[in-house]
Amino acid sequence: MKYGARNQIDAKVTGIQKGGLMCKVKLEIPANSIMNSVMTIESVEDLGLKEGDQVKAIVKAINVLLVRE
Amino acid sequence: MKYGARNQIDAKVTGIQKGGLMCKVKLEIPANSIMNSVMTIESVEDLGLKEGDQVKAIVKAINVLLVRE
Amino acid sequence: MKYGARNQIDAKVTGIQKGGLMCKVKLEIPANSIMNSVMTIESVEDLGLKEGDQVKAIVKAINVLLVRE
Amino acid sequence: MKYGARNQIDAKVTGIQKGGLMCKVKLEIPANSIMNSVMTIESVEDLGLKEGDQVKAIVKAINVLLVRE
Amino acid sequence: MKYGARNQIDAKVTGIQKGGLMCKVKLEIPANSIMNSVMTIESVEDLGLKEGDQVKAIVKAINVLLVRE
Amino acid sequence: MKYGARNQIDAKVTGIQKGGLMCKVKLEIPANSIMNSVMTIESVEDLGLKEGDQVKAIVKAINVLLVRE
Repeated sequence: MKYGARNQIDAKVTGIQKGGLMCKVKLEIPANSIMNSVMTIESVEDLGLKEGDQVKAIVKAINVLLVRE
Repeated sequence: MKYGARNQIDAKVTGIQKGGLMCKVKLEIPANSIMNSVMTIESVEDLGLKEGDQVKAIVKAINVLLVRE
Repeated sequence: MKYGARNQIDAKVTGIQKGGLMCKVKLEIPANSIMNSVMTIESVEDLGLKEGDQVKAIVKAINVLLVRE
Repeated sequence: MKYGARNQIDAKVTGIQKGGLMCKVKLEIPANSIMNSVMTIESVEDLGLKEGDQVKAIVKAINVLLVRE
Repeated sequence: MKYGARNQIDAKVTGIQKGGLMCKVKLEIPANSIMNSVMTIESVEDLGLKEGDQVKAIVKAINVLLVRE
Repeated sequence: MKYGARNQIDAKVTGIQKGGLMCKVKLEIPANSIMNSVMTIESVEDLGLKEGDQVKAIVKAINVLLVRE
């Protein structure tokens, strides 16, 4: 299986927070870094996500903004 | 300085590839992982980006797609 | 500090509306125009945003859709 | 006609720059501010865009990133 | 009226689900396929959307991710 | 395999157009409708895409803009 996106990061689900419609999934990626993904609750349920699950975090390169501080 | 986004990753520029209008910037992030960002050439020039520069890669959580393989 | 995006608009926060997980921030930009930004409540809290604050609204050019009426 | 997006800005086309596949359209918005939109060349041709045209720039609120400097 | 996006799909609203701030609109497209759109509740109200309404679903090509299974 | 997105459309590749850095992939979806996806050339090569291939087109619901004409 292959994804047409430049960023594909292995991640572990470490938390799931639900709102009324949307959901925030907290992820641990290599080097103990943290990422977050927001999707609909319906999508979280379709994926059957729970803490500890291994997932892939996909981000199209166009959605990465670079900042120089 | 603070960003209204859930994903803020320290990165080092390891390569810059130009097209006619757009540019792909290759990044090294912790744990020797690789990320890529696509923006206009004009933005790369405004940032004055070159190999070896330290930047921050910002991604809104809504733009992170999770996949379970 | 520099941003790798073609649209960088000075704005003043004129209202913040919270949902269960997400937040809508109302902005005033030059010429008395109005913009809105949606992000997680967690991001609003990290920014410490409140009415009257000056911020910068960043939009990558790829996210601007043109319509001819 | 109505758009399901929180940001709808009247704009005038002030320049069009073509790459191999993509196109950058420069826009003037109220208060002499500048915006830019990137789309495929094919979309620019479908719109029949040329300098001086009046358009509407649509941005979903989720695509607006706030930064506090 | 013309849109600067490569994907313009005729759709019928078949359901609207509200959260605290955001709204999910369920759509039927040709061949009995289903699509979904998420926007602010405020946008749904501006559009005056209700079940049975005909709308156009616009997606910029850059936001379409291809996957090979 | 499962995707955390509300829109997952079966599609057939009917054309690939390359720019300097980016690529536009033309797709046929059910009911003889047409979609397009833009990604980096590098992503097209990773997928090994060619005309006739079956793929899945994934779109997060937040990236679907509704318009009422």
